[in-house]
Amino acid sequence: MKEVNVAILGMGTVGGGIYQLIEQEGRNIEEKEGIRLKVKKTLALDYSVDVPEEKKARDISEIIEDPEIQIVAEVMGGIKPAKDFEMMALRAGKTVVSANKDMISQNWPDLEAAAKEGGVGHYFEAAVGGAIPILRAVQDSMQANTITEVYGIVNGTTNYILTMMDERGLDFDEALREAQELGYAEANPTSDIDGLDARYKLSILASLCFNARVPVDKIPCEGISKLARMDIEIGKELGYVVKLLAIGKRDEDGAIEARVAPTMIPKDHALANIKGSFNAVFIEGSAVGEMMWYGKGAGDLPTASALVSDMIYSVKAGEPRYASFDNRYDAQGVRFNDNGLTEYYIRLMVKDEPGVLSQIAGVFGDNHVSIRSVLQKPAEKGGLAPLIIVTHEAHEKDLQKAVAEMSSVEAVHGELHCIRVEQ
Amino acid sequence: MKEVNVAILGMGTVGGGIYQLIEQEGRNIEEKEGIRLKVKKTLALDYSVDVPEEKKARDISEIIEDPEIQIVAEVMGGIKPAKDFEMMALRAGKTVVSANKDMISQNWPDLEAAAKEGGVGHYFEAAVGGAIPILRAVQDSMQANTITEVYGIVNGTTNYILTMMDERGLDFDEALREAQELGYAEANPTSDIDGLDARYKLSILASLCFNARVPVDKIPCEGISKLARMDIEIGKELGYVVKLLAIGKRDEDGAIEARVAPTMIPKDHALANIKGSFNAVFIEGSAVGEMMWYGKGAGDLPTASALVSDMIYSVKAGEPRYASFDNRYDAQGVRFNDNGLTEYYIRLMVKDEPGVLSQIAGVFGDNHVSIRSVLQKPAEKGGLAPLIIVTHEAHEKDLQKAVAEMSSVEAVHGELHCIRVEQ
Repeated sequence: MKEVNVAILGMGTVGGGIYQLIEQEGRNIEEKEGIRLKVKKTLALDYSVDVPEEKKARDISEIIEDPEIQIVAEVMGGIKPAKDFEMMALRAGKTVVSANKDMISQNWPDLEAAAKEGGVGHYFEAAVGGAIPILRAVQDSMQANTITEVYGIVNGTTNYILTMMDERGLDFDEALREAQELGYAEANPTSDIDGLDARYKLSILASLCFNARVPVDKIPCEGISKLARMDIEIGKELGYVVKLLAIGKRDEDGAIEARVAPTMIPKDHALANIKGSFNAVFIEGSAVGEMMWYGKGAGDLPTASALVSDMIYSVKAGEPRYASFDNRYDAQGVRFNDNGLTEYYIRLMVKDEPGVLSQIAGVFGDNHVSIRSVLQKPAEKGGLAPLIIVTHEAHEKDLQKAVAEMSSVEAVHGELHCIRVEQ
Repeated sequence: MKEVNVAILGMGTVGGGIYQLIEQEGRNIEEKEGIRLKVKKTLALDYSVDVPEEKKARDISEIIEDPEIQIVAEVMGGIKPAKDFEMMALRAGKTVVSANKDMISQNWPDLEAAAKEGGVGHYFEAAVGGAIPILRAVQDSMQANTITEVYGIVNGTTNYILTMMDERGLDFDEALREAQELGYAEANPTSDIDGLDARYKLSILASLCFNARVPVDKIPCEGISKLARMDIEIGKELGYVVKLLAIGKRDEDGAIEARVAPTMIPKDHALANIKGSFNAVFIEGSAVGEMMWYGKGAGDLPTASALVSDMIYSVKAGEPRYASFDNRYDAQGVRFNDNGLTEYYIRLMVKDEPGVLSQIAGVFGDNHVSIRSVLQKPAEKGGLAPLIIVTHEAHEKDLQKAVAEMSSVEAVHGELHCIRVEQ
């Protein structure tokens, strides 16, 4: 039996989950793995579970300087002091397991250098997809594949809100308020609803999939707060469901396109049926073809499961692991494609008079955007009618130019609503 | 760069796939993993791909006695001589990667002993779910979970046939013929359609999930060849789809129930939408809750991907791995539950006369089987009417007793059709 002493930084939901899980499944882990995990110290301002006083560290040095502590779990979140604490632990030769996507996605090279310096591993399965073992799958099960596409639902809060809007016809504000009341959204929900959380996760996931660094600032990001209930309803009529998707693609020339955006997908696509706080990720590999993973994207025990799994994995690993993408790609420079092909759903509010459709179609045509279908809804009070255009695949820049020119069409009033469509 | 010499036993679809995949992705693997895989020898009667003469071994000893060969991939299938070859390779200190579910599920202890003797690992990700990295997930990502349930679609051939029967209203025989013509079913399809292939896979998967040996002969197994088109159609009316499910459950007292059987599942369940030759597996863990994996269950490159992944994994592994379940459980004796609770769909052909339903309901009631719903269809020519009973959860033995007694009801004619229902 190997005894392994662990410290937990941050004792909120996830920290408390780790503490409980080691208590609950400790015996099971000893029997299966021959490893006895022992939480020796914790460091936190607030505690979500009861912890004996002697296990509460006064400061980080008490953990860093304890030679018996072999693994540090960082689940405080945020950049400061989380980054410093992870760096200190790694340099001191302690394996770090972490769920901190914000920090990791923005500080990967520093963390990797510190891990090398300390001769230890840095593991972060819990940072993407909660309980879903997606990073391990990419690293340990898809080595013989060139991955061309990764996409999915990686934020449970926005998925919960979108599910409520879709199923119960709520407005965004109503759905958000309900999600907050039920604890699915935070009091300050910006990181989730603006898509930032999904962007951090996609940065990590796409970097591993494409074996190339995909920095956060190379990922255009659009949230869900401007989504109108009307577009969700019209989308439904057309056979689509709106989901906040994180998408990464690599084309044949190696150029990478990554983005986070509300996206219409056919209602019979597997992702359309991922509801509430669940996550799901699709990967397309050269040998395996299409694969999908599904599971709980957040929560105390699901996230703790990934962190404790990383602990056990690190103890058994042949050599410490930090990140599997090759820095060589950084040096050469990864190419990013900012003019990808997608279909678009566009809703304009137009005056219901002769010749309007022809003018609008003309603007699209002039910009090489080909129209797939048109739907005109009856005029609302005020005399404006919703006109819905679904395009064929169009280059992003062409589409943006067409959208910009649309303001010069006199019959078009107010804002234009544009949502990507993926088949 | 680590050079690793590999031998492939069996050069049919999967063996050819390995050979091609190493050629195709070799450079990629070198860059990402620092490992150069080289196929040094192959052994086969028939070759599905072109292989230079100098790479063709005359007999197994040429491979076993070559100290440069570090890994042997066994993809010949069958028991003889596959088992002997794997045992020889393991004892000679060569890592074995294998897709041979039939052989492994029935010879696990011997293989484990040989692997220990040779001080090497025995890996078989490809044996269950093709490209889906389900065994690795159970072993490397769910260590902190007590798994209570594992179930899914693990045989692509039967799933293809059932999809055809469902979508195109074909009879079993027609669908099988079509599957054979398209290469989805073998000329001798017994192992697939009788559920034996799924049973081998469930034996391996359930053993790993429950950390206890679940031998093949402890898994009751029913195939799909007796499925009537009529029951698929009536099931559809009732909101169900029929799938061949492999199911393993462990109750709170640790008793294991495992079986392979055609099963009705609600049409909005994720497994109902797994079509054609795809596989999908659900696992329920104490910490993660519900998780699902989906991907190609067979085929040259998908299966080869799992085998080559095992090769790379074995080179990087800290210590060789054979099986993760604990023999201790064998010694103590695993308890199996052969009287589990399930709902049932039952179709009887009855004479359409007064009092029949009351007699039939009486037989169920006397045997503690409670009826959930009844559907009587119009009588067919010959005067017999299909009477469909869906039960509440009933103990298997009670149900069997009720079914046996049904023959004494005069109005019941011909065979009784019974299909399990899982919500």
